[in-house]
Amino acid sequence: MDNPFFKNNGPLKYRDILKCLSLENDENNQDLNIVDIKDLQNSKSNEITFFHSKKYKTLANNTKASFCITTKNLQNELPKSCIPIIVDNVLVSTSMVTSKFYPDSINDDFDNTVEEINKTKFNDKVVFGKNVLLGKKVSIGSNCMIGHNTVIEKNVTIGNNCSIGSNVIIRNTIIKNNVRILDNCVIGKHGFGFFPKDKKNLRYPHMGIVLIEDDCEIGCGSTIDRGSMSNTIIGKNTYLDNQIHIAHNVKIGENSIIAGQVGIAGSSIIGKNVKIGGQAGISGHLKIGNNVEIAGGSGVIKDIPDNSKVMGYPAKNIREFLRDNK
Amino acid sequence: MDNPFFKNNGPLKYRDILKCLSLENDENNQDLNIVDIKDLQNSKSNEITFFHSKKYKTLANNTKASFCITTKNLQNELPKSCIPIIVDNVLVSTSMVTSKFYPDSINDDFDNTVEEINKTKFNDKVVFGKNVLLGKKVSIGSNCMIGHNTVIEKNVTIGNNCSIGSNVIIRNTIIKNNVRILDNCVIGKHGFGFFPKDKKNLRYPHMGIVLIEDDCEIGCGSTIDRGSMSNTIIGKNTYLDNQIHIAHNVKIGENSIIAGQVGIAGSSIIGKNVKIGGQAGISGHLKIGNNVEIAGGSGVIKDIPDNSKVMGYPAKNIREFLRDNK
Amino acid sequence: MDNPFFKNNGPLKYRDILKCLSLENDENNQDLNIVDIKDLQNSKSNEITFFHSKKYKTLANNTKASFCITTKNLQNELPKSCIPIIVDNVLVSTSMVTSKFYPDSINDDFDNTVEEINKTKFNDKVVFGKNVLLGKKVSIGSNCMIGHNTVIEKNVTIGNNCSIGSNVIIRNTIIKNNVRILDNCVIGKHGFGFFPKDKKNLRYPHMGIVLIEDDCEIGCGSTIDRGSMSNTIIGKNTYLDNQIHIAHNVKIGENSIIAGQVGIAGSSIIGKNVKIGGQAGISGHLKIGNNVEIAGGSGVIKDIPDNSKVMGYPAKNIREFLRDNK
Repeated sequence: MDNPFFKNNGPLKYRDILKCLSLENDENNQDLNIVDIKDLQNSKSNEITFFHSKKYKTLANNTKASFCITTKNLQNELPKSCIPIIVDNVLVSTSMVTSKFYPDSINDDFDNTVEEINKTKFNDKVVFGKNVLLGKKVSIGSNCMIGHNTVIEKNVTIGNNCSIGSNVIIRNTIIKNNVRILDNCVIGKHGFGFFPKDKKNLRYPHMGIVLIEDDCEIGCGSTIDRGSMSNTIIGKNTYLDNQIHIAHNVKIGENSIIAGQVGIAGSSIIGKNVKIGGQAGISGHLKIGNNVEIAGGSGVIKDIPDNSKVMGYPAKNIREFLRDNK
Repeated sequence: MDNPFFKNNGPLKYRDILKCLSLENDENNQDLNIVDIKDLQNSKSNEITFFHSKKYKTLANNTKASFCITTKNLQNELPKSCIPIIVDNVLVSTSMVTSKFYPDSINDDFDNTVEEINKTKFNDKVVFGKNVLLGKKVSIGSNCMIGHNTVIEKNVTIGNNCSIGSNVIIRNTIIKNNVRILDNCVIGKHGFGFFPKDKKNLRYPHMGIVLIEDDCEIGCGSTIDRGSMSNTIIGKNTYLDNQIHIAHNVKIGENSIIAGQVGIAGSSIIGKNVKIGGQAGISGHLKIGNNVEIAGGSGVIKDIPDNSKVMGYPAKNIREFLRDNK
Repeated sequence: MDNPFFKNNGPLKYRDILKCLSLENDENNQDLNIVDIKDLQNSKSNEITFFHSKKYKTLANNTKASFCITTKNLQNELPKSCIPIIVDNVLVSTSMVTSKFYPDSINDDFDNTVEEINKTKFNDKVVFGKNVLLGKKVSIGSNCMIGHNTVIEKNVTIGNNCSIGSNVIIRNTIIKNNVRILDNCVIGKHGFGFFPKDKKNLRYPHMGIVLIEDDCEIGCGSTIDRGSMSNTIIGKNTYLDNQIHIAHNVKIGENSIIAGQVGIAGSSIIGKNVKIGGQAGISGHLKIGNNVEIAGGSGVIKDIPDNSKVMGYPAKNIREFLRDNK
């Protein structure tokens, strides 16, 4: 996680990690430093990782992490160099530890580092409306416009030739070139991910960002949430109509066209050249292939292969749907 | 209706009530004062009530109200102490009389009593952004944050440890502790209730409020309308995702989780620990039990008993739905 | 197109039109002036029109235009007074030429002509909130209110007795009398119309406006897009609930009632006295008759005759739907 948006609070002591999980102390290693938390594949020495399903056994066998949050049953898959931390619920515990490293990734309090754009170096560089607010370390390319009452929060990057509308809020986001974000959008807030726990919801950290590639248009009143451990990505030249909701970790390929009021749930992957009609909904963790067409109002609850046309709820082959519903 | 949001314009003269309903004068009682309008059960002497269906016969028999808007057929159910006011359409007439008592309950003109928060006593007490506006008699607890361009209208109460986002508008609302209202929400406007009448719609008064209990989160761009005669309530630790619409008089129990773009129509009651998937819709005046799960995209048009899992439009048992739609 | 919102960049030389379409020069007429672009029926001498389907043969036979964008096969239907311009894709070419005449009809950059209302002539005439911005040549009738942070862009006309909420953005729109636009609406942005072309989308010009007739209410967070060659129209005394999306060219008749989160796709025509339940969706280019009732959650994909009640997806007769879905 080397993005500029979420500061790593580490190194943390092993002792503090155990305490955060309400586990007993391990006398031998309690003063060891843990530098960061990453997944099995990307973690290195002096880092902590997590392992919650046999599915990831091979990755676990080879992890370079020095510590791993896991279960009693899975612990023997880890190499000897990796100290297991045994818990009941790996994902909940991982969430708690991640929050220790990245406390800012849970909240979305407004950015109070902002100042009015006319008091910044962008005063002569950007065409802007009234009451435009920029957070610290915002970067804006050449030939950009930003409308009235828009808030660009700290560390956001905007490329060249972008037009941002009025009443827009952008945080934890990288926007490439020639992008248009229309009025009243909210881009980059945390996803709707948490674990219900003792009548309090335990928030899942969201350290991912929103990445909007070249030539995109995002319609009025749309919301795009940032990712948890990965990023939310809108591919090149993809156009979103008004009032669309894109949840955390979603990735949309290039040249796609998504009509009004569509919703895409968390972690779904949408291919290239996909067309989605108005008000269609796509469940979480699905894979929608390239060149797929989804009719307006459809509800997609399973993967859709390349080049398919689907319709209905649950969405199926469009000819079949129309034949069955004459 | 002893909430601070809507001022009672009473007492009104009996004569003025009759005039407002285009009824002939009643020579005997025309100077009597009528203090307030309430339902059959809660009204007292010198107040007016309404009775429009045999369903409420027992309540009507025992009402303490001095006046009652009702029909020719129903009038004999009222006690002798209660003067019947005979009309054709009880609800329309009640709406007209209620509007006389509570003229402010019909409109949602912006609050022009606001001033900038830095000119109020909250300047040192609240962490706030640019251009935050507070109406008269707003109350805010300790350790709260309010984002840029947010408007908190008159008489709104916010508890402790709340985080309100940017571009939010809140009116006629009581917010308890540890609540998070994310960017671009509109909370507390009047419900979408009115009677079509002679090519003009007659607005139904909305004197209810929005009550948001402890530990809730309301996602970006959501709208929660206030109630008409009762309140709209979001229960403790209930989380709403982005772009959700909650209509007037809806009550949601505690620990519920509602995903993006869900809509709940007027006066429906949702239980505790309910999970509603994205884009699901719930019709008005329904009762959804505790621990119910409603799949994304479903359309619920009848009551759902406790502990059920439903899917489809119209929503039915989820196993049945999946079996029928293989 | 004699509306004040989009300036005609004409006259253009015939030579420049050919160049814009990458066509070879026509030696004979290259210096001729072309004044404007219109449809077959409304175009006059010295204007250019377009003809892309045999359906419009009769109109083509009688057009008064001096130039017509058309195909090789269709060109012989034009009168001798009309010079054909032969292209492969008439609509794409028309879009390109229209953009030459009306370059402002493609973009929706924020209006930077605005100034704060208290510095305009409306300071004493309108009741307004903080940070209200008006573009050049805005017209506002008597007895109007405009809420906080609202932006009324250039040339917009608002009638008498209107109440505009807070955080509203209005452009390219004419609003008649007694209209209420609630908080967070965006009215008048360009429609979601374009041609995918070489991994860049070619925008379709939107020179139409939004026209909101007397006595309408538009709910919070709604978006109404302006038309392309015709206007988007909301009829007299029609009420829209929250979070509704009305696409370009849609026309809704009078006294209609549309519940929350409904979406109406481009160019559909909705009759008078129509009731549409929450979350219903209506596909593009449909005709919904007068007095039609569409149940909440329905997906309408074909025309609906007068006085029908429909439900389901695809929407069909409501009795039939309920019988089939017991």
